[in-house]
Order: sequence, then C-alpha cells, then structure tokens
Amino acid sequence: MDKDGKPIQFTGLLMTTDGKVTKLLQRGEKRPEKLDWRADMKGRVMLPGFVDSHGHVMELGFRALALDLSDTKTLEEAKAKIAAYAAKNTDRRWILGGGWNQETWGLGRFPTAADLEGVAPGRPIWLSRADGHAGWANSVAMAEAKVSVRSVSPPGGRIEKTGTVPNGVFVDAAQSLIEKTVPQPLPGDRNSAFLKAQAILLGFGITATADMGTSLDDWLAYRRMGDLGAMRVRVMSYASGVDTAVQIAGRGPTPWLYGDKLRLGGVKLYADGALGSRGAWLKAPYSDAPKQNGLGFMAEDVIRNLMSRAALEGFQVAVHAIGDQANAQILDGIDAMVDTYKGDRRWRIEHAQIVAPSDLPRFGKNGIIASMQPVHQTSDRIMAEARLGSARLTGAYAWNSMLKAGAKLAFGSDYPVESPDPFAGWAAAFTRMDAQGQPFGGWRPEEAVTREQAWWAFTQGGAYAGFAEEKFGRLATGQRADFIIVDRDPLAASPTELRGTKVLETWVGGEKVWEAK
Amino acid sequence: MDKDGKPIQFTGLLMTTDGKVTKLLQRGEKRPEKLDWRADMKGRVMLPGFVDSHGHVMELGFRALALDLSDTKTLEEAKAKIAAYAAKNTDRRWILGGGWNQETWGLGRFPTAADLEGVAPGRPIWLSRADGHAGWANSVAMAEAKVSVRSVSPPGGRIEKTGTVPNGVFVDAAQSLIEKTVPQPLPGDRNSAFLKAQAILLGFGITATADMGTSLDDWLAYRRMGDLGAMRVRVMSYASGVDTAVQIAGRGPTPWLYGDKLRLGGVKLYADGALGSRGAWLKAPYSDAPKQNGLGFMAEDVIRNLMSRAALEGFQVAVHAIGDQANAQILDGIDAMVDTYKGDRRWRIEHAQIVAPSDLPRFGKNGIIASMQPVHQTSDRIMAEARLGSARLTGAYAWNSMLKAGAKLAFGSDYPVESPDPFAGWAAAFTRMDAQGQPFGGWRPEEAVTREQAWWAFTQGGAYAGFAEEKFGRLATGQRADFIIVDRDPLAASPTELRGTKVLETWVGGEKVWEAK
Repeated sequence: MDKDGKPIQFTGLLMTTDGKVTKLLQRGEKRPEKLDWRADMKGRVMLPGFVDSHGHVMELGFRALALDLSDTKTLEEAKAKIAAYAAKNTDRRWILGGGWNQETWGLGRFPTAADLEGVAPGRPIWLSRADGHAGWANSVAMAEAKVSVRSVSPPGGRIEKTGTVPNGVFVDAAQSLIEKTVPQPLPGDRNSAFLKAQAILLGFGITATADMGTSLDDWLAYRRMGDLGAMRVRVMSYASGVDTAVQIAGRGPTPWLYGDKLRLGGVKLYADGALGSRGAWLKAPYSDAPKQNGLGFMAEDVIRNLMSRAALEGFQVAVHAIGDQANAQILDGIDAMVDTYKGDRRWRIEHAQIVAPSDLPRFGKNGIIASMQPVHQTSDRIMAEARLGSARLTGAYAWNSMLKAGAKLAFGSDYPVESPDPFAGWAAAFTRMDAQGQPFGGWRPEEAVTREQAWWAFTQGGAYAGFAEEKFGRLATGQRADFIIVDRDPLAASPTELRGTKVLETWVGGEKVWEAK
Repeated sequence: MDKDGKPIQFTGLLMTTDGKVTKLLQRGEKRPEKLDWRADMKGRVMLPGFVDSHGHVMELGFRALALDLSDTKTLEEAKAKIAAYAAKNTDRRWILGGGWNQETWGLGRFPTAADLEGVAPGRPIWLSRADGHAGWANSVAMAEAKVSVRSVSPPGGRIEKTGTVPNGVFVDAAQSLIEKTVPQPLPGDRNSAFLKAQAILLGFGITATADMGTSLDDWLAYRRMGDLGAMRVRVMSYASGVDTAVQIAGRGPTPWLYGDKLRLGGVKLYADGALGSRGAWLKAPYSDAPKQNGLGFMAEDVIRNLMSRAALEGFQVAVHAIGDQANAQILDGIDAMVDTYKGDRRWRIEHAQIVAPSDLPRFGKNGIIASMQPVHQTSDRIMAEARLGSARLTGAYAWNSMLKAGAKLAFGSDYPVESPDPFAGWAAAFTRMDAQGQPFGGWRPEEAVTREQAWWAFTQGGAYAGFAEEKFGRLATGQRADFIIVDRDPLAASPTELRGTKVLETWVGGEKVWEAK
C-alpha cells in the first residue's frame, strides 16, 4: 500500500543487513544475482505488519497468564472455571484474573461476592470485568482489604451495594479499594508477562503497537527486555500520566531505542470510564439508568492542566474519551490550547465512541487523531443501544464520519479488552457486522469505511498516530522490513474468509520473530 | 601496568574503530604504515584512566551546582557565603548546599539555626555537612518542616537540641525530618547534575566510577543520558537498597549498556554512619563522648536479610561500614552466608575505616573487597584521634594490613565528601601525609602501600571490584581504550609533584571526551 492508501503488488523485497527495505520488486523485474542471503516465500502472500494503535501490552500478558473468564457463557460456567484454576494453582493464594461480562452471561445484574461463596474457600478472589472498568471480589478479598459498610465510594468510582452493604463489585476508581491489597507482581512476573504479550501480538501479525498507559514498572520491564535484546514487537509507549512521563523521559519523548523498538512518546490521560459499567460521561442520562450520567474523571481545569503540562514538556497527548460529554470536554480542551502549543502535535482522542453529531466535524480541526477500535462496535452495539437508546447513536462508532470530517483515523483493538486479532477488526471495519454476520447488512452501515481505508488505519494510520510513519507502517524504501506471511489474500477474501486468515510467519526488522506451529 | 601490577612502558597504542586496544607498541617497534586515523600525543605521558571505586555521581553534580561551603575556614566566612549565594539566586526560594565542617572551622560545637538568623530573611536554608551524615537548617526550614519541641529522633538518627528545643542540626536518619520538605529536583535538574559530575570526573582523569547508592531517579537520569549518547564516563552502579535494584533490574545485574558505559551490578547497604558526626558504630564508646557508641543502622537479622536478598537475586553486595562494630557485623554476616551464596561474589565493605585488629585477617577470607579512600585518612586523622584515642587506631585506615591479610583493595575518593582528584589519593596512599606534608614521615606509616600498589587499586582494583576487569582498568589487548594524557610522569614524580599533576586530555573508548582549556 502506498502512502495514499493504494495497494501495491510486488513479487520480492530487498533489504539491508540491518533490516530496512531497499526495494520492492515488481512482476517480471530482474532479481539481483548476488545476495548475501535470501528467504523463499514460496509464492505466499506477504503483507506489511499490522500496527495496533491502542492496546495494553502488560495487561495482555498478565491476563494471558491469569485466570481468563472471557469465554464463559454463564455465571455457573465461570464459577466452575474459577474453582478449577484455584485447584490447579495452589501456590498462588490470591486468585486473580478477569474477562467476565455479565451481559454475555445474560445475568441482568452484576455478579456478587455471594456468588463466589464456597468456590475457593479461604482464598481471596479478585476478577476484572472484560473492559477493565469494574472488578469483582469475594468476601475474603473484601475482608483483607477492610471493605465494610463504612466504606465510601471514592471520587470517580462506585462501590456496588445491596442496601448499605458492599456486594462485591467495584466500579472504576473504586477498584483501588481492593487492588491496594493485591500483592504486586515481581519484576520476573513482569518479564514473563511482556514476553507472553509479545508472542501473542506477533502471532496475530502485529509488529508494532501503542501501549496506552505505561507505568514506571512497565517501562522498566521494557528496558530489561530491550537491554537483553529480547524485544521483538515495536512499542510506542504512552506513559500513564504526566508525572510518569516526566520522571522517565524528562523533557520531550525518549529517542527511538533498540533499533526503533521502543519510544516513550506521549502521555495517556482519562476523561471518563466505559459504557458497559456506565462510567462513560454522557451529556444526557443513561437511557437504562435515568439518574446516571456517568463519571467525568476530572474537572475542566484539572484535565486541561494535565494536557497542558504534557504538551509543554513536549509529549504527545492521548486522552481516553468514550461518552459524548467526555469527547466534548477534550475537544474543548484542544481548542483552548492549540494556539499555545503549535507545531505537529497530533492530539489523540482514544475510543471517541459516542460523539454528539454536532461535535463530529471538530475532529477534523487541529490535526486530531481519532484512535478507534472497530471490534468494540460489534461487541458493544446491543449494550450501547440499551445504554443510549437509538436516537443518540448517530455519532456512535462513526468511523466514516470521522474520515469525512478530516480526522486522522488510527485503528486498534484495545487488547486485552478485545482480542488483538487485526483481521477481526479489519473485517468489522468495512462490514459493521460481527463474526456471526450479525446484523445482516451491518449496523448503521453508513459508518463503514472501505477495505483499503481500514487497512490503512491498521498500518500506516497507527504508525502516523505514533509519529512513526518514517520508521514503519508500510513496505517501502527506507522503512523497517516488518511484514507477515499469511495463508490468503485479504484484499480478495470475503469478510468471513478474511476473519479466518492465519498468520504463518511474522518478521520484524528483517528477522523472523514468529512462525506458526 | 600489567595484571600483576608491574608498570609497562609503551610508545604507542593501536585500537579498533570501536575503541578497544589491540596492541601496545614497545620502544623501537615498527609502527603500522596504514592507519585509518592517528593522534600524535607529542611525546607526552599516557596513563590508563583512573577508576574511582566509591563515589556519588549525582551528589557530585548537585553539589557542584549548589552552594559549596567546603572551602570556608570559619563560621563567619560561611555565613557571608550563604548570604551572597542567597542574593545571587533569588529565583530559588530554598537555599540548598553543603560542605560545612565544624571541625575545619574550629568551632568546637555544631553550628545552630540561631547562627543563620538574618542571613537570608524569610527563606528556608538546608545545608549538608561535608560527610553527608548531618544537615543544618535555619528556623524557616524547621518551621516549614513542622519541627518542634515535640519532634522525636527517628531510629538511626538524632535531632540535636538545646535543652528540649531542636537547635538546627539533624544527624543521619534525622535529616529526613527536613528533607521531606525540600522541593525535589526535576528531571532536567538531574540531567544537568549528571553532566556536571561527568565533566568534573573526566577533568580529573577518572574514566570509570562506582556510583554508591543509585536511586531510581538517578538511574532514570543515566538512562536518559545514555539513550541520547551523552554518557562518557563509565558508571558501575550500586542501587540504593535491594528494592531499588530489583525494581530496576529484576533478577541479577543489568547487562553492560551503551558500549560498557553503564551497568547496575550491585546493591549498596549501610551498616552505620560516619565518624565526624559520631554515627560510626563502635565496639566501645567514643573517647570524646563516653556515653555514645554511634549508630548501628540495622539489627543483625535485618541487615543479613537484606544482604541475603541481594545475593539471592544475583547482585553484588556493598556495605558501608566505618566503625569497628559495624565492620564486625558485616564480616559476621558474610561468614554466615558464603556457604549459601557460592561462586564469585566479591563481597564489598565500603570504607572499612576502623577495624578491630583481630578482625583485620577476616578481610582476607571469602574474597572480600576492601573499598577504601586514602584521602579520608589524611582528612580524618586528627578527628579520628579525638573520637577514638590513639590506642584504638591500630586497625584504622589499615591499607597495608588489608593487603597483607589478602583482601582485594579498591581505592576511591568518596566524592563529593572529598575531591575526586585521584592524584591526591594516590600520593596519600604511599605517604600517609596530607597536601601540606603533614605529619612529616606519615601518620602510622606502616599502613602505607607502595606507589604501584596504590596505582593498581585506583585502576585495576576498582575495575575488579566492579566485575569490570575484562572491560577496562588497564591498557592491554581487548580492553577499552580509556586513557589520559598528563603533564608529568607520576611514577617518577615526588609526592608533591604527583599531587600537582594536571590532566591534559581524557579519552574513553578511544574518543577524546575532555581536554584542558
């Protein structure tokens, strides 16, 4: 694909010994006779590596190593899986994991601590919701965290209660009430989590990713891995908050490190929570909870001060905004500071899920990047209709409107909230249908983008969003040779076939770093 | 100098393009005709770069940028200098600095907050003692830190009082009472401090140094400098405590980074304080304070647990021990764990200043490194005689006895407590006389080492103490080309001439990194 998004066919690729592309060979073009080295791709399909614009590297690894409830279809099934995990992992007193979703279970309510009674006697249990915006504790965990009827919800959070008694679910900032008691992972655990995440990403053909919310300890793990030469996937790091960014990098981003494998370039901030747990901040109340508008995480002056400090220190600003009020708040903030912070700033709004139609054109101003996750649309649509009612969905998951408004689109998966599989995201992006082909013809299909636009947003769009377009994102002279070998041609495949694409090999910087077994 | 400490004469040095020595040319030996590049040293004297085995890199830089009282001869002179600094630096509300020594002033007591009344009206003042083991605050600083008659000395520290009222001096751990209120330096300040320290060290011909007590923020500054290619001096880092080491490096040391410029290899621990402030932990009471034995920083089980945790994670252990009781405690600890932690551990005792004669032979066991600072002996001797009485000085600053016992000697300066100047340390090491030639014939001259032994301890000894003897420390095939050009031959110079040696150029890894103006 060229810079403008037009696919390019080629039959071979030449590169330097340090893994940069020198030339794409066209059909019939003479191949050089002398090569230091060659690999025969046997006529298979080669694509540029994918760039995931929004993921959580360490969480992906930790979740892969922890108890995973994301495939459970009922509460009973989940309980059985928890009990089995507890029996298998007797060396870990705390049972940690996540991936549950009461919507998938058709439970019609949050689960409770009572549901966990007898599942793992005497051991604390703490399980994150699939979107990371709520956690579920058992009575042992609540007792160890000293949660009681006297506990009060912190700002930006909510303790779910039955009457006055905390019943086991802690929403958004309230999760900290339990998390402060959970034993912290050791550096060795962090190394393992990184390597696990890296293997998963490479296995899906993702050769570069944004890490949205790098903690100091995450960063130290990346440095350990980089120092040992164990980094394969490229990580565009966005520090968790301004203080972390400044503590690590001082003024401005770090240089690209380890041969363009790692760079701390920006700061991740939060304007609100998520839709599933009704933490997304809305202009009008939730349709299914008429007394709630969700949670604005920060007052106007606080969020602006943080955005301003990040920009002042030379960092890129990426703000999570899901509800229409949160999106408006950040758009207002950017409007207010573009005159102060000039130049190529690439302000990012992460998710930009629910946007008031009158705010959509504002994404085209000031070079804003809309960092969006196509699979969220297919996972969320029924829940979103319940939360918002159909009248408010005109500006929801509005990829095509964003493009038309002139926003820069960057696609990702928000792993581990969703699978990092880029083929699923790619198919969703131009069909607005899920893996089961639902709803037929696509949900609000006018917001689909083309197959090529989606591909761009999953490669060059992601690189551009991370100030990396001169380094990687496409196969062209001077770019890093990051590519994948797949089992079919995704430009010719039906959406269902596209979803079934298997990655056979993944190469980063001219080195084979993953291969299907 | 060869591995065994015998000086080698050479007339030229060949190296690879990446700055490693390939050959030393002998007099009369044919020079290669074709060279990519050459530098003519014009017949001047070339020596291997010095290795300082015990310094505090960031403190050196911060102190060089802060108010320096180390050259003041009286309290009045110090007050005038503080007032001048305050007038010049109106942008900094806090007046921070150090280097004072009531012994040098002949004050016969600690200074007090009252002495600072009117020196910088309305502004907080906080000044470290030359040895870093005490701090001096004015009344504004004490008020901002909420120090009052109700303040109690923390474990391992002492608030100096007049009657029941804190009078301005805070010894050892009590310094934290004020320090928690002092504004923290920003990352940009840390960068400046590193660069300042580096320039000072290179200017003294020091091409590698141990950093004894690297904090997380220090480490992040080294990484910023290394990432930007701004690191010139080699830093063998010893993390400030086990938790810091593990948080940064996980299990075991980091690799050598940036072309052997940086490695976190060990952990710095403290067994006691310093002699000047009577914080050194003695077997019997101080001669000049018969009710005080000094301060053991940690109980037996606590210090052993820390040493054990560090060794278990693969880190080298370096423990500050000044008093004879502290030295005995660490020797006991090493004895107790050598069977558990086998292999090449190179246990380090830092300072090893006052050692009971019966404990001296124990330094020869278990491959212990005595990391000592010759200049401390010349600076301390009068104070040491006052503190200990002459009967207890048999095992004091006992370099020669250490060598004879079979300890590995590594010399350093403990900068910024002393100047990093290695020529001053070298001259003191074989004369036991200070810069004024006092006392004539040397103080307890039987503890002098030879000129060559001292040179070894300031080069190869320091490299060995940092597990770096295969990287640098001497000029030989395969070693990094770290060398200096000086204005005289230190092997032929009188002690006074040696002290006057000027460094003309400093080269690290084959690159000129400093030149005299």
